[in-house]
Amino acid sequence: MALIVQKFGGSSVADAESIKRVAKRIVDTRRAGNDVVVAVSAMGDTTDELLDLAAQVAPIPAPRELDMLLSSGERISMALLAMAIHSMGYEARSFTGSQAGMITTADHGSARIVDVTPVRLREALDDGAVVIVAGFQGFNRDTRDITTLGRGGSDTTAVALAAALNADVCEIYSDVDGIFTADPRVVPLARKLDTVTAEEMLELAANGAKVLYIRAVEYARRHGVLIHARSSFSSNDGTYVLGEGMTDPRTSKESGMSDVIGMEEPVVTGVAHDLSQAKITVVGVPDVPGSAAAIFTLVAKTGANIDMIVQNVQSASPGRTDISFTLPKQSAPEVLRALTADQESIGYESLVHDDQIGKLSVVGAGMRTHSGVSVTLFEALSQAGINIEMISTSEIRISVVVRGDDINEAARAVHSAYGLDSEIEATVYAGTGR
Amino acid sequence: MALIVQKFGGSSVADAESIKRVAKRIVDTRRAGNDVVVAVSAMGDTTDELLDLAAQVAPIPAPRELDMLLSSGERISMALLAMAIHSMGYEARSFTGSQAGMITTADHGSARIVDVTPVRLREALDDGAVVIVAGFQGFNRDTRDITTLGRGGSDTTAVALAAALNADVCEIYSDVDGIFTADPRVVPLARKLDTVTAEEMLELAANGAKVLYIRAVEYARRHGVLIHARSSFSSNDGTYVLGEGMTDPRTSKESGMSDVIGMEEPVVTGVAHDLSQAKITVVGVPDVPGSAAAIFTLVAKTGANIDMIVQNVQSASPGRTDISFTLPKQSAPEVLRALTADQESIGYESLVHDDQIGKLSVVGAGMRTHSGVSVTLFEALSQAGINIEMISTSEIRISVVVRGDDINEAARAVHSAYGLDSEIEATVYAGTGR
Repeated sequence: MALIVQKFGGSSVADAESIKRVAKRIVDTRRAGNDVVVAVSAMGDTTDELLDLAAQVAPIPAPRELDMLLSSGERISMALLAMAIHSMGYEARSFTGSQAGMITTADHGSARIVDVTPVRLREALDDGAVVIVAGFQGFNRDTRDITTLGRGGSDTTAVALAAALNADVCEIYSDVDGIFTADPRVVPLARKLDTVTAEEMLELAANGAKVLYIRAVEYARRHGVLIHARSSFSSNDGTYVLGEGMTDPRTSKESGMSDVIGMEEPVVTGVAHDLSQAKITVVGVPDVPGSAAAIFTLVAKTGANIDMIVQNVQSASPGRTDISFTLPKQSAPEVLRALTADQESIGYESLVHDDQIGKLSVVGAGMRTHSGVSVTLFEALSQAGINIEMISTSEIRISVVVRGDDINEAARAVHSAYGLDSEIEATVYAGTGR
Repeated sequence: MALIVQKFGGSSVADAESIKRVAKRIVDTRRAGNDVVVAVSAMGDTTDELLDLAAQVAPIPAPRELDMLLSSGERISMALLAMAIHSMGYEARSFTGSQAGMITTADHGSARIVDVTPVRLREALDDGAVVIVAGFQGFNRDTRDITTLGRGGSDTTAVALAAALNADVCEIYSDVDGIFTADPRVVPLARKLDTVTAEEMLELAANGAKVLYIRAVEYARRHGVLIHARSSFSSNDGTYVLGEGMTDPRTSKESGMSDVIGMEEPVVTGVAHDLSQAKITVVGVPDVPGSAAAIFTLVAKTGANIDMIVQNVQSASPGRTDISFTLPKQSAPEVLRALTADQESIGYESLVHDDQIGKLSVVGAGMRTHSGVSVTLFEALSQAGINIEMISTSEIRISVVVRGDDINEAARAVHSAYGLDSEIEATVYAGTGR
């Protein structure tokens, strides 16, 4: 008998009907003879509504109290879910983050998990109960206060529970069938991957794929948790995210393109696109040692996450160079302020802000062993008449910046060029994938 | 510097605006140099909305999960209240029932408080913080599960905190100015009482007065807590409920009608009315020993709370008697079912169910030392042409059952007959008094 951890997001428990549907799904898993532990998010827009209430009573809500407030959202959904399961004739018990032993740092709103002591969960499992745990929340031992984990918190809760309970698999349910070779809403011929390696998943997630949160995937890789990303709207198999030395539980094949039957393992696993970035170009930087250091020390101070950096060999004016970098759109204003304030000391000529860019990334572990992978990318884009503005690479990824308007066409062209196209169009559900 | 416990109900924190108003009131008390501990209910209709959700997912919600669900309501209101106070520049910390050390029995939905260990509250007070505690909830030590206290729970939470922290006063805020000699919505000339004894308050509450819950008053009397019932819409003094040996903190007079200047202490403190009762008459019961026992054993089995019992000496048929009793309207159907089922064994002739009755009660500690108190009542009613159907008395109370339609006129007539009328009409706020 297996121990299965399941995570259901807010859209899966948005109302009484969806809660009953999820409850039935959990009961089916239990009836199949498995122990089941469920991490659940707050219902639908509950968290946003609570944030709105907080804003109405306090311009800057006290972080401790904000966590106390937000943590009530999961208490509602988990209690309702437990009731629904109970009324189907199965024992079910819900536990808050602290009851579940989810011990975190004291950083309210963005707490990190430091330990999981699921004593009460084990007791409940031994009693034959289905265990429901509030996602997104924990508590700090020193302050004895309730904390929340921040963005992607419920996924992380699920993976952390799977690790602590040594679960056989951690099923992350969303409104898409799994991980695709590209976003099916942009690339209709995208195919679902049976498996993807954790490192590939991290690159895909970091570069625009929205099905899983980086934080949860990282946690899973570090603790050897097998993630199964699947849809709460179908019982189809989804995509298994395989960490170091894991194998596909169905075929026990090593991670790879086991879904592309009769083909050699392709070099590229998937294509990701990202429209959330902006580009800043610092024009006419003195071409002397220390210029770049000065600029990025300044940028770092703003807390902005720099992604790509490109330095042109030549600038319009002699003895000077241009430095371009990409960063999240919302970080741009702050960075521009900082750079403008220090223009004299840095000695650059001007700033160019461009928030109409799109980033396309091809990811594949096979790149390690194959050369010329980039050529396919560049050729595909040039044939599509799409201009490349920036290029950056990692060991298993190549990313290019193009015009935002070109990103969809670029994704389709590149997906096809790497032979990833499926014969049939993928079914696309409404929703964001979260 | 005094320690003041304040309780605010759901209507006082129904939305962001009301929460800010309550926060300001708390801050004023704090600014005046007092330590403040607040017990707060869930916002407005939150509890009903949660109950509705529960009913949608489960016909009979699991009690443990129902308590988990309902307890989230106070977490929302208390966190918002703490934020609001915080944003006014005062330190404030909210605590759940379990964090506050509110230890209860394991009876979900109707838990009784067995101990209060407010360690964290004392720490917070020592740090100079305003303490906000979730009303209505606690936890059980053995099961480590969250419990709720049931009806009147938040009032009881406040009184229990006042007792455990040895507070100087427990202020129960509602939308009325305090305890009146009668319901001002029925008796316009009712006057607000400066003080009332706990035993009088218990009789008034038990017989229809709605401002305070019996349970909280009982707890306060047992633990020597001074209750101050006052309005959240004005800063006027309300009514102090004085237990054994307590004195009016303003006049340090013993409990009594210190508000009726220049009069002898009247025998009657207040008039209460109650339209929530029904009357059942068992007609033609064999006039032999054991008949009454048989009937009320049966009634007790249904769990119904019997109030008044009257046995007529004579019934229409010889050798038989009629037994009438009053009980809460909602209990009547169940009791009628039970009696009908056992008609043969009891041997009565028929049942009469009357849910159009009203109960009028006059309450006063002075009755102990004065005789002829009832005469005033009976004369007042007969002068008003109102017929009395049943009579019952306690040491400090006389109650009569009349037609429900007559109850308002009866209340006015009796209030006036006992010299309780004020010269001016009382201000009446909307709302139920809760």
